[in-house]
Amino acid sequence: MRSFEQLQELFTHYLHEKKLPDTTSGLYRPINHIMDMGGKRIRPLLCLISCQMFTPEVEKALPPALAIEFFHNFTLVHDDIMDNAPLRRGYQTVHTQYGVNAAILSGDAMLIKTYEFLCESPKNCLPALLRTFNQTALDVCEGQQMDMNFENEQQVSMPQYLRMIELKTAVLLAAALKMGAIAGGARTPDAMQLFEFGRNIGIAFQLQDDLLDTFGEPGKTGKQTGGDILQNKKTFLLIKALETAGKEQRTILQHWLAAKRFQPNEKIAAVTDVFEQLGVKDAAKSTMQQYYNLAFEHLNHVSGNNEMHRLLTDLTRQLMNRQW
Amino acid sequence: MRSFEQLQELFTHYLHEKKLPDTTSGLYRPINHIMDMGGKRIRPLLCLISCQMFTPEVEKALPPALAIEFFHNFTLVHDDIMDNAPLRRGYQTVHTQYGVNAAILSGDAMLIKTYEFLCESPKNCLPALLRTFNQTALDVCEGQQMDMNFENEQQVSMPQYLRMIELKTAVLLAAALKMGAIAGGARTPDAMQLFEFGRNIGIAFQLQDDLLDTFGEPGKTGKQTGGDILQNKKTFLLIKALETAGKEQRTILQHWLAAKRFQPNEKIAAVTDVFEQLGVKDAAKSTMQQYYNLAFEHLNHVSGNNEMHRLLTDLTRQLMNRQW
Repeated sequence: MRSFEQLQELFTHYLHEKKLPDTTSGLYRPINHIMDMGGKRIRPLLCLISCQMFTPEVEKALPPALAIEFFHNFTLVHDDIMDNAPLRRGYQTVHTQYGVNAAILSGDAMLIKTYEFLCESPKNCLPALLRTFNQTALDVCEGQQMDMNFENEQQVSMPQYLRMIELKTAVLLAAALKMGAIAGGARTPDAMQLFEFGRNIGIAFQLQDDLLDTFGEPGKTGKQTGGDILQNKKTFLLIKALETAGKEQRTILQHWLAAKRFQPNEKIAAVTDVFEQLGVKDAAKSTMQQYYNLAFEHLNHVSGNNEMHRLLTDLTRQLMNRQW
Repeated sequence: MRSFEQLQELFTHYLHEKKLPDTTSGLYRPINHIMDMGGKRIRPLLCLISCQMFTPEVEKALPPALAIEFFHNFTLVHDDIMDNAPLRRGYQTVHTQYGVNAAILSGDAMLIKTYEFLCESPKNCLPALLRTFNQTALDVCEGQQMDMNFENEQQVSMPQYLRMIELKTAVLLAAALKMGAIAGGARTPDAMQLFEFGRNIGIAFQLQDDLLDTFGEPGKTGKQTGGDILQNKKTFLLIKALETAGKEQRTILQHWLAAKRFQPNEKIAAVTDVFEQLGVKDAAKSTMQQYYNLAFEHLNHVSGNNEMHRLLTDLTRQLMNRQW
């Protein structure tokens, strides 16, 4: 049984081994740019842990783990173009550094590479892995489309919002776990329970992100708070606030949502104040906790190695407590 | 044995059957927009003909045929963004109609759908189909990257140019044939010869496109001539002209390449005149003919049904003579 650190090292080594060569056309340069930025590599780790629940031959899950990490980074490259984002993890985004066209094209090549890596999985489980991955990848696109649509919509309901974060964020974590289980030879019910664990944990993570963006401590999160408020982003907090606001609070919210010129800090303070009055912080925490609990109900139904159960529980707790 | 028209109908029917549903997010709307524009469906037809060389069960090649047609249209969606092209086949391009972000995202979904369709191929040949397709798709990206790089390069050599059109255009035709053969149960040497046939025919087609853009008769091609000249596009003709020009002709070419303000017709006439003087039209025709002949040398080595041999020959001749 490999420890968390050993799995991390195994993946880092594999990632390095599979690093793309620099072709004359330069097609892969932007890909190496984003892959070299690092990141927590959560998805491949979940994939490896999940595999190790069912077999000590954890190498079997390296191809799907790499595929998922590549796919995740591919979505970042194209999302950053769509969001016009200049920076990611403190580095220039791909399209800022190489131009939009190169970012579109190298993103496309990343998606193809994703499949190439996935095809290196053990033959007997490849069809099941491809099926899960295809569906998940389409779901992620669907989630991104919903998120883009929300920008132009007056009102977004809570079920719509929860569905969006499920598709855009949660299903890829879920698929990482399910695909690791498949590669490890898990029975279908176990693979499905792990998917459900990941899906619920993913929703809880995103709700936590929403909370941290407004209520986090910059010293702990490493980010300024209030970004979502400044962008009028339809998060759990704003949607809940608009749902529960009285007349006066609604007027304040709508004033700030419509305001064209303002002091950023003033807007952040005013909107946060309404959030506090309406108790949406506690509502978000409570909903987050519900998804978290639901996740572990699913995990409890998974047979498989105890040590890995504990590892998965520890990692999840750590991620849920990262910046509080 | 199905005739050309019967294969066309079979594919059209399958395409219709697999038409994407309209999800609430609208993700698939831009995809249906480009797929409904039509086009000659050359690649899927090549795939089906190639399959029928080796088996009467031509349905086996429908999934790869559809995958290739989807992939081809996906490249058009993203290329049109990169080229800033407003129109395609007389319709608004996807990004003009739906915006750049929707075009990027729905293109991504098309590429995933491509794999989903491909995965519906007969199980026993899926690994070989995926291998061929992955390599081809990466080659196409590499070709597009080279083409973009050429725009900023002072000089492009003939081997560089031929390599670019091979990757950007020819290998997908080649893969269509090879994948049809694989689905039809062809032996590896036959599948490889068909790939080589397609690769060489693809290069010949592109050289023909270069010729038609400058020397075609608008009445027959349905397009105005001179587009490549106005855009300073590095085609076979321009590269050959710059390679063979004497001092005076080089001066004329370089004047027009650098000219910022000019009468379009005047530039087209002047550059075409230099092309005529240097005999690059004949040089292009001769090179085109060489690739065409080479293609048929490869086809002659393919065992397999005679009727389909004839069909492939007829289709190729027809495409090569389409606008002369």
